[in-house]
Amino acid sequence: MKQQSVAVSELIAALGGDLLGAPDTCVSRVAPLDEADGQSIAFLANPLYRAQLGSTQAACVIVAPALAQEAHERQGGGRCCIVTPDPYLYFARLTQWWVRHMRARPAAVAIHPTALVDPAALIGAEVEIGAFAVVEAGARVGDGVRIGAHAVVQHDAQIGAGTVLAPHVVLGYDCRIGARCLVHASTVIGSDGFGFAPAPGEHGVEWVKIEQLGAVAIGDDVEIGSNCSIDRGALGDTVIADGVKIDNLVQIAHNVHIGTGTAIAGAVAIAGSARIGAYCTIAGAARIKGHIQIADRVNITATSVITGSIHQAGTYGGHFPFDAYANWEKNAATLRKLHDMRQRVRALEKKTP
Amino acid sequence: MKQQSVAVSELIAALGGDLLGAPDTCVSRVAPLDEADGQSIAFLANPLYRAQLGSTQAACVIVAPALAQEAHERQGGGRCCIVTPDPYLYFARLTQWWVRHMRARPAAVAIHPTALVDPAALIGAEVEIGAFAVVEAGARVGDGVRIGAHAVVQHDAQIGAGTVLAPHVVLGYDCRIGARCLVHASTVIGSDGFGFAPAPGEHGVEWVKIEQLGAVAIGDDVEIGSNCSIDRGALGDTVIADGVKIDNLVQIAHNVHIGTGTAIAGAVAIAGSARIGAYCTIAGAARIKGHIQIADRVNITATSVITGSIHQAGTYGGHFPFDAYANWEKNAATLRKLHDMRQRVRALEKKTP
Amino acid sequence: MKQQSVAVSELIAALGGDLLGAPDTCVSRVAPLDEADGQSIAFLANPLYRAQLGSTQAACVIVAPALAQEAHERQGGGRCCIVTPDPYLYFARLTQWWVRHMRARPAAVAIHPTALVDPAALIGAEVEIGAFAVVEAGARVGDGVRIGAHAVVQHDAQIGAGTVLAPHVVLGYDCRIGARCLVHASTVIGSDGFGFAPAPGEHGVEWVKIEQLGAVAIGDDVEIGSNCSIDRGALGDTVIADGVKIDNLVQIAHNVHIGTGTAIAGAVAIAGSARIGAYCTIAGAARIKGHIQIADRVNITATSVITGSIHQAGTYGGHFPFDAYANWEKNAATLRKLHDMRQRVRALEKKTP
Repeated sequence: MKQQSVAVSELIAALGGDLLGAPDTCVSRVAPLDEADGQSIAFLANPLYRAQLGSTQAACVIVAPALAQEAHERQGGGRCCIVTPDPYLYFARLTQWWVRHMRARPAAVAIHPTALVDPAALIGAEVEIGAFAVVEAGARVGDGVRIGAHAVVQHDAQIGAGTVLAPHVVLGYDCRIGARCLVHASTVIGSDGFGFAPAPGEHGVEWVKIEQLGAVAIGDDVEIGSNCSIDRGALGDTVIADGVKIDNLVQIAHNVHIGTGTAIAGAVAIAGSARIGAYCTIAGAARIKGHIQIADRVNITATSVITGSIHQAGTYGGHFPFDAYANWEKNAATLRKLHDMRQRVRALEKKTP
Repeated sequence: MKQQSVAVSELIAALGGDLLGAPDTCVSRVAPLDEADGQSIAFLANPLYRAQLGSTQAACVIVAPALAQEAHERQGGGRCCIVTPDPYLYFARLTQWWVRHMRARPAAVAIHPTALVDPAALIGAEVEIGAFAVVEAGARVGDGVRIGAHAVVQHDAQIGAGTVLAPHVVLGYDCRIGARCLVHASTVIGSDGFGFAPAPGEHGVEWVKIEQLGAVAIGDDVEIGSNCSIDRGALGDTVIADGVKIDNLVQIAHNVHIGTGTAIAGAVAIAGSARIGAYCTIAGAARIKGHIQIADRVNITATSVITGSIHQAGTYGGHFPFDAYANWEKNAATLRKLHDMRQRVRALEKKTP
Repeated sequence: MKQQSVAVSELIAALGGDLLGAPDTCVSRVAPLDEADGQSIAFLANPLYRAQLGSTQAACVIVAPALAQEAHERQGGGRCCIVTPDPYLYFARLTQWWVRHMRARPAAVAIHPTALVDPAALIGAEVEIGAFAVVEAGARVGDGVRIGAHAVVQHDAQIGAGTVLAPHVVLGYDCRIGARCLVHASTVIGSDGFGFAPAPGEHGVEWVKIEQLGAVAIGDDVEIGSNCSIDRGALGDTVIADGVKIDNLVQIAHNVHIGTGTAIAGAVAIAGSARIGAYCTIAGAARIKGHIQIADRVNITATSVITGSIHQAGTYGGHFPFDAYANWEKNAATLRKLHDMRQRVRALEKKTP
């Protein structure tokens, strides 16, 4: 990363916000409040961290109006502040500005000489294709797309304008991804769904493969983490709507539908044909059963196992509470006799006047 | 996909079944009953969906004898039907026929000019090796094998006839995979098992690596999903028997044995030296402890944690039932006092005559 | 593997231990006690397997002093033994010796002609870089490093001396890994952390990306399995200290800190900003919540969900005990009424004198 410096006035010109303090305050890195030094810009979004205003060395703090005066005056007074109604959102936009303006990237190569782009692929303007990448016949690659080293775009796949595939991504044949998406390394889009029909074999079941004739259809503004698997549909498509965000190591089985704006944290697994609504959040390592429906605006807590449809917005979940292991062992023994215990309580109730 | 049309009589000639209706009925896609149009062939396997016979637009329905007449006559009558004892199995075979006859694939290249095949590898007839694939010395590649772009077949690995490795698969040195297998993208076969001996270090344990001297031995007709990790054995081999089917993101640790015909759904993890019997099913995200044994024909329910051996065929499992989160919180508090509660019930029972 | 034979005296010269029996006993493979043949060296570490001393065919057994005489005399007497206080540790070191001396590897190529190494990368002595590997500008690769086929080392990444990256590893820009590390295939180091700020959209939340400005910093002597995802930090770095061992398919989110010597088994997921102490063990498929702290020398049991900080060394965890599924169903129904049942027990206690 090229270390250079930017005046807070320049940030405000680009990103908005009100200034408190000296406009020529310069910053050269973005840091958390408690790690910030005199070259840093930091933010205060959660009032729980308000106390850090007294100790932070940050040259500039992004802060909401209610805390602006305090942030300005603490630590000797006169600290530079950017005042904005939503400091966390401002911080997000700052990081985007930072990547564009403060970070050196190696010079882009349009299409690396080692990349294999089939002449029967349709390649847009200002496309970058990395070393050893493969783009097969019939693929359509939109303007400004960046395809990382070793990525494979199979035949008849489509990539919308401005989308970035990191190194080692595989985008399967016939699969489509929209505009402005970002897919991280080693994610596989369009592996076969897990579908077999049982047939009687000599000694037991013989699994007869159901060829997966569908594809994956991904909307615009979707981000997908590294090492995810998103299977193609059996007949129709697996569908991921606009604005969905997916973390690492997520399994999305065939014919799943994920609604607009839903966010899915790491290590989640969603079984086949589940339909997840719009604007949901699915926290880390949750598991969703196949063929169920989840309404819009449902929040699933971390590591929950969702085995039935959810028809109302709200927060759902449950997990086994951890404990010192010795305690758990005692309770676990009782857990297997829970139904018995309920019967015993019922018997007691009958006997007790 | 090349859209063309096929007469139902041609399907019956290839796949069997009895015809009800016009043999020259033509179909150009395979669809679910409720999404089928007048160009579609669909199937009815689950009697629960029988009502869809009244509304489906499918030109042809694959159906069991008991529902054949109804399927033929609903929706104005005379619909074309293929009658077969097991419609789901017929559908599976239809998808296979469909891929062979109705789908255009880019023309195959025997060995892509960018692929690196060591002269000391033994390559069978009619092999396809994709762009940038690497096949090291001593590898043995059977007839009709297809190795995808960027796949790596390390030294002394073996691949049986007709097996397909998708792009980015890594088949480690000394590992063997049988005939007619399919391995999806980015799966790693033969990474090191997780084995370390603790030695006293200066401040705490120091882990001394146990080199993994075994390999992975995979039988015939095995399918493995994308982004799976199958570790090589510590001394002997990790073994996956014939006909096993494994979904995506599955972890199989060193020296695990999986019996013939067992099916393992997505995100399952199986710890070291576990022995799973034949014809088992392990549903999604289940976890199997190391060094345990599971008998033949055991079904493990989704997300279960199997911590002990299972000696009898049957269905086993258990998971924390989800709930509205507020309810869960109340119950979870009690859960940690379960053992206490049992003692209190016992005390009440003693006092109550 | 080149099968050759080694005299036990040569092993003792290299690895220490006391000899009982004939020094010219030759062995050509390492095997478990119960699979050993007359060419095998085996070990007995766990007294539970003592009975196998009577039946094993091993030519040589590595054994602790207390069992040495028995091992020497069983099975006709005079068996060769290597006597050492910690047979398991001796075995670990034996496997390392074995790989160096008994296993043939294809001759190394310094930098494969197909590899792309940017002239602005700093490459140490005796480095091996595999086919189609990519090393970008500004990368620093230490002496004796081995970079596998198709691995990608992005700009300004650093690799310490003697570290090995397996095929298909991606080491992201600015990320550092220390000396003598081993990273298995398809692992991604430095994908973006999962960070978004919610902004009001037209129909629901719109997620605004927080660019991840940090990197990943990995210490010395770290091993990481295949298909892991280790995200870069949002502002600071994700940190993995010296001597950490990580199995396959592990998710490590942004800004996680893992302390020295901690071992993490397969399919574990650790959410953002969690701080794990030194010399901990985290068993398979455990889940650690974000922003919590775990003290040194904590052991987490398999599949546990750790939702709060742990301040004392010890063993913690808990999981739903599996059962025959029909039993589970009965108990699960009660589980949702646990709080009610507690109230009923309380009511009974009040009524019962």
